[in-house]
Amino acid sequence: MELIKYILLQDLINKIKGTISLSPEAEQYIYTIAKKKVVSKDEILIFQGQSVTKTYYVTQGCLRSFCIDKDGKEHTLQFAIKDWWISDFMAVYSNELASLTVQCITDATVVEFNTKKLNEIYSQFPEFEVFQRKNLERHVVSLHKRILNQLRMTALERYHLFLTQYPDIEQHTPNYHIASYLGITQQSLSRVRAENTKK
Amino acid sequence: MELIKYILLQDLINKIKGTISLSPEAEQYIYTIAKKKVVSKDEILIFQGQSVTKTYYVTQGCLRSFCIDKDGKEHTLQFAIKDWWISDFMAVYSNELASLTVQCITDATVVEFNTKKLNEIYSQFPEFEVFQRKNLERHVVSLHKRILNQLRMTALERYHLFLTQYPDIEQHTPNYHIASYLGITQQSLSRVRAENTKK
Repeated sequence: MELIKYILLQDLINKIKGTISLSPEAEQYIYTIAKKKVVSKDEILIFQGQSVTKTYYVTQGCLRSFCIDKDGKEHTLQFAIKDWWISDFMAVYSNELASLTVQCITDATVVEFNTKKLNEIYSQFPEFEVFQRKNLERHVVSLHKRILNQLRMTALERYHLFLTQYPDIEQHTPNYHIASYLGITQQSLSRVRAENTKK
Repeated sequence: MELIKYILLQDLINKIKGTISLSPEAEQYIYTIAKKKVVSKDEILIFQGQSVTKTYYVTQGCLRSFCIDKDGKEHTLQFAIKDWWISDFMAVYSNELASLTVQCITDATVVEFNTKKLNEIYSQFPEFEVFQRKNLERHVVSLHKRILNQLRMTALERYHLFLTQYPDIEQHTPNYHIASYLGITQQSLSRVRAENTKK
């Protein structure tokens, strides 16, 4: 087994073992389908409008997924840092073309999985159903919270929450990425940041 | 078997059978834990701040889940019509107290499930893992779309989408429910509706 891949995947394997009992065969399957990928700042891994064949597990650096609207404006759905998954899951789960772009915000190391091979894990090793259900349940919780926070919080409160959730991202990403995640203009973000500095 | 419950659950059972092969024992388990409940307009099924022990499958009528912020303002997370599930899933999946209220918007008929008994279905009938994973995947897709639409669409576009997604709700629900789902003020909703009528 390639040592570097083994090291990269240890956190993921340990996380899986924390939820389900992982057979040596299932563990081996994960190593077999995983591919280490070193990517550079600004590199694009998934292109809006194209088919989505890969899902990424981040081991270092920061990526984001966003869509570009008809006026060319970007809207950020997700940031992904160490131990997060990123892809266009709308496309993967609905078997549609990408409506998102996935881009590296910093130089990064990711583990690349072919979505088809990753999906075959459920028939080969059904114990993964439990792991994925619990993953998806947690993801649903975070999405429900994000929707509610978007409805009930002020821009300043959402910015504070963002700093708590992604403490390391602010220094690596331009203002307009954060503004496009919070759903506010860059001018509003600058004002919010100024208010924040005063406190 | 109680005939009325059998009829009420037929759509759900057929939907499950469309995804997985359902054993007679598993089907029987669903009937055993299901409880028909006729509820009245404005009745509250889950109270914000209390523990959540029930999940509801709607067979008739309309319900909504919402949170009340510190200023007493309501924010609607979800509407649920025939064949939809509703509960406070943040509370259920994270084992926390309810941060939502679930209320009937119209007189309604629901099938009530005890969340603990519903959760036991996975260990007793592991084939349900596949069904629930696919359910959750679809739910994630719809939540990703909602977040993106909140970021990229105008209030008018979101209102049009709402009318497409929930064509029967508008006549049953006061303006402020819809406004609190779209994340706009009632005044904006009235303006948007007036623009809509002009077209």
